[in-house]
Amino acid sequence: MPEKIVVIGGVAAGPKTACRVKRLLPDAEVVIVDQDSLISYGGCGIPYFVSGDVSDEKELRSTSFHVVRDEGFFRDAKGVTMLTRTRALAIDRQAKTVKVKQLDTAEITELPYDKLVLATGAAPNRLQIPGVDLEGVYVVNDMHRAMAIKNDLAKGKVAKAVVIGGGAIGLEMAESLADLWGVETTVLEYMDQLLPRIVDPAFGAMLEKHLKDNNVTVYTGESATSLESNDAGRVCRVVTPKRSIEADLVIMSVGVRPRSDLAKEAGLLVSEQGSIVVNNRMQTSDPAIYAAGDCVEIINQVSGMKNNAPMGSLANRQGRVAADNIAGIPSQFEGWVGSFIMKAFDCCIGGTGLSHNTAKTLGYDAEVAITAQSDRAHFFPTQAVIMLQMVFDKSSRKVLGIQGFGPMNDSVLARINAGAGLIAKGAAIEDFSNLELAYAPPFSTAVDALNATANVADNLAAGRLRTVSITDFLQWMEKPQAKPQWAALDIRHPKEAAEFVGKFGPELWQAVPYVNVRSRYNELPHDKMLIIICDAGTRSSEVQVFLDSVGLKNNLVLGGGFNAIRRIGADWWPS
Amino acid sequence: MPEKIVVIGGVAAGPKTACRVKRLLPDAEVVIVDQDSLISYGGCGIPYFVSGDVSDEKELRSTSFHVVRDEGFFRDAKGVTMLTRTRALAIDRQAKTVKVKQLDTAEITELPYDKLVLATGAAPNRLQIPGVDLEGVYVVNDMHRAMAIKNDLAKGKVAKAVVIGGGAIGLEMAESLADLWGVETTVLEYMDQLLPRIVDPAFGAMLEKHLKDNNVTVYTGESATSLESNDAGRVCRVVTPKRSIEADLVIMSVGVRPRSDLAKEAGLLVSEQGSIVVNNRMQTSDPAIYAAGDCVEIINQVSGMKNNAPMGSLANRQGRVAADNIAGIPSQFEGWVGSFIMKAFDCCIGGTGLSHNTAKTLGYDAEVAITAQSDRAHFFPTQAVIMLQMVFDKSSRKVLGIQGFGPMNDSVLARINAGAGLIAKGAAIEDFSNLELAYAPPFSTAVDALNATANVADNLAAGRLRTVSITDFLQWMEKPQAKPQWAALDIRHPKEAAEFVGKFGPELWQAVPYVNVRSRYNELPHDKMLIIICDAGTRSSEVQVFLDSVGLKNNLVLGGGFNAIRRIGADWWPS
Repeated sequence: MPEKIVVIGGVAAGPKTACRVKRLLPDAEVVIVDQDSLISYGGCGIPYFVSGDVSDEKELRSTSFHVVRDEGFFRDAKGVTMLTRTRALAIDRQAKTVKVKQLDTAEITELPYDKLVLATGAAPNRLQIPGVDLEGVYVVNDMHRAMAIKNDLAKGKVAKAVVIGGGAIGLEMAESLADLWGVETTVLEYMDQLLPRIVDPAFGAMLEKHLKDNNVTVYTGESATSLESNDAGRVCRVVTPKRSIEADLVIMSVGVRPRSDLAKEAGLLVSEQGSIVVNNRMQTSDPAIYAAGDCVEIINQVSGMKNNAPMGSLANRQGRVAADNIAGIPSQFEGWVGSFIMKAFDCCIGGTGLSHNTAKTLGYDAEVAITAQSDRAHFFPTQAVIMLQMVFDKSSRKVLGIQGFGPMNDSVLARINAGAGLIAKGAAIEDFSNLELAYAPPFSTAVDALNATANVADNLAAGRLRTVSITDFLQWMEKPQAKPQWAALDIRHPKEAAEFVGKFGPELWQAVPYVNVRSRYNELPHDKMLIIICDAGTRSSEVQVFLDSVGLKNNLVLGGGFNAIRRIGADWWPS
Repeated sequence: MPEKIVVIGGVAAGPKTACRVKRLLPDAEVVIVDQDSLISYGGCGIPYFVSGDVSDEKELRSTSFHVVRDEGFFRDAKGVTMLTRTRALAIDRQAKTVKVKQLDTAEITELPYDKLVLATGAAPNRLQIPGVDLEGVYVVNDMHRAMAIKNDLAKGKVAKAVVIGGGAIGLEMAESLADLWGVETTVLEYMDQLLPRIVDPAFGAMLEKHLKDNNVTVYTGESATSLESNDAGRVCRVVTPKRSIEADLVIMSVGVRPRSDLAKEAGLLVSEQGSIVVNNRMQTSDPAIYAAGDCVEIINQVSGMKNNAPMGSLANRQGRVAADNIAGIPSQFEGWVGSFIMKAFDCCIGGTGLSHNTAKTLGYDAEVAITAQSDRAHFFPTQAVIMLQMVFDKSSRKVLGIQGFGPMNDSVLARINAGAGLIAKGAAIEDFSNLELAYAPPFSTAVDALNATANVADNLAAGRLRTVSITDFLQWMEKPQAKPQWAALDIRHPKEAAEFVGKFGPELWQAVPYVNVRSRYNELPHDKMLIIICDAGTRSSEVQVFLDSVGLKNNLVLGGGFNAIRRIGADWWPS
């Protein structure tokens, strides 16, 4: 008798598992059930469908060769039975059956299985606040909502929108509303920075400024307490503890939680956070039942912690491993590192591994190297600066994470991708110093930005470089009198430094150009802590070494320099 | 007494070593000598200076903050003495001195050293053929020649050019002549493909077609036997065994050889190939003498073979390691893997690790997985196809190399960089299947092109996929009667397949669409070896699995499919 494989869930991990199982076991009967009518869509593409970059929702449900992945496609091309509008109600592990209900006919049947795959995904969180069910309030988790949002926009119903939640999906939605539809858009983030936990405050601040420069209003440390409606019952206002914001559309993007009720009710092991527990072969506590995708808990390869990590790319990889093991191939899913990338108007932000804050919370002896380097040869016409940060453990010299902020091309991606595999393997700073990134002037620099960042980390770890954090520098500039012993040493070209010296005076803002420090260091005060500042931090590091050698050891380097400050913005900036 | 460090060579490795030594040992006296007047230039930028992308040669000699790296800069900013127009004549290892001659004054002096660094670089090869010294015949190895070439172009002296040598520098020069100056340009390559040894024939062929599409004439398997002059003594013609080509300019780009005479005469260990032998701390056979850059021999981390690898990026990394060790920091240079990338008009080509041909020559059980995948979500407006190849060892499953060909952006770079560090660490196919590349639709696909290539390699290594090579397929199509038992099975959309069926007839060219194979496989012949063809190879692999399962096991998949063939070009293509 052919082996029977039942897969619950028709997006990402489910179809991936089902189709590969069918390829590995061509004689097996493979059935997918999903309660939705629209399945196998690229959920991460929803913001680009809403924006209009993707004109038809069918494109999100199509293969690269432009065939819609519907029931017929799975039957004809894949040999897989796709039962849509079919809800899995319960699993009988003894009988090895799944009870399912066809939602249109209300017919209930039992599907027998030899192997069962749970790819039940995640459900969007909703704030429990008044007005959450009003018309015009959406979560973004399926094609129906995506189409409804786009419909509202197309019909001219939306002049003002509020996005609740400053994570990746919320921000992508904010861009799609503001950029192509010209909607007056506000983002509310409860935490005190955008992309909290994912990036560190300096990178969140660069992103925030770029969004604001593109007419998106951003309020951090603030969330909605209620939603108010107009006479027609549609949302018209978002109320926060600090203000009231008009809105015809509210996108609620406040995270997801794994859908694990079926698993729990069947007695499978589920974590305290509600994720289905699997081994590294994607097997649940019942050896006949596998699980993959947003519903499971996986191990972070850097921290060793187990988390729910709802990402389409991970779901696909897990699906492949589940399929392999169902077919008797001993593949393993070793965990995740946290690679991500996000477009934000003309810029992009990405990362992999742990953030500095997360690393510190986990008890690492974590420090950061920040650089501002050209993405390609500085003489090549299309060059631009990318900001890179390397988080490392000072004791072990292990690299824990990388973050990048740069122009909207693949230059940040190229550095994040270079780091992802090495970080998963526990690589150290020297692995990144010597990492042989491809070099030609139209693509990179002889010492690649990532190598340069590792070299800064190396100098920091060895105590050959002392830095001040961007946060500490900005706090000081906000209130210089709090640290009267500090003074800036601006080593840029005199023309660049002039307006700062003019505004702040030489007590606070000294200027000696980089090329003159060796001949003019006698002009510098001995009683001050000098904060050495250039555009990127590279020249400042050299100046620190020199000043130290002549006995002026009271100094710190601002890593990332003016390139960082300019991207974050400061109201003390000379106008 | 301060330590005395003498560095011979003022480009890349030399200045890098000198400046870092000075930072690590601020009290040391650091001197660089170079026989040229123009030093510390970005040699890899020369093609972009010649093309006009970089307008002034000074930009190639400037820092990212636009200061020219001349003698004064090294003195004032770096605290390093740069002696230009100063040739090192001999090393006295007992006395620890270097005899140098100032070329303008002819004065000879002895520079004492505690540590000596040889960064003598490489000298360009010249073909020993008649006419090699004619006016208008150039090698590309320093700024003087670069300026002379550009001068010839700017003065309108050049209507037709021949580049001898189809390596990276030759091809970059060919583009710069053809693209911005509109020069009628021909490339001659002695080997039977472009970028020989670096990429495999299929990738060389894609590059060749793209150059030809951009009006560069390419002859492979052909080199110059003599150069002829006009009455004014300037080159006017390049003669090969097959033809005579008019040329007002000839660029000779036929490789380089390490400059190691000084080292050899001083009794240092030099390899048979003429490279200075160093340990992984960049120390020569004399512990007081270090060497770095194009003049040394380094180990290939994949093959374990020692080679000369003249690359600006490697030179900088080696310089850093040499400086560290001179200053007592035990850094190591572990070797190289062979990462490279090159712009070619609207496309780029890159790679890392070993090519398939090299791997086979070295005795590996090497096979290749070739894919044609979207660089970003197929529904994202700017998506394009990139061709990727993974070379792996079937026995050990170790990944030996990656090659990529794609549009002129950083998408190939992002995949090459992702592979470089892992290949250096001896990673296996599964490391690439699970490699967590950053995903968002504007940047990549949920299963990244590199993951997908690894998945194909996995299927190949496990015997779950059988392919025909692109070369074998093209040979067959050139002469189908040589293999009358073969037939193409075109599984694309019927509209796409129609003109092929029309031209070749159903004996040679069968067409059954992918989505219909499960219902129509009975139409297929049992006595033929079916070559399954789609656009990328993905659907073909699925069809192979299905046909095998119904007993039609006589079939092979064309990896890369029509995307590969289209990029290589074929004269049998229906017009």
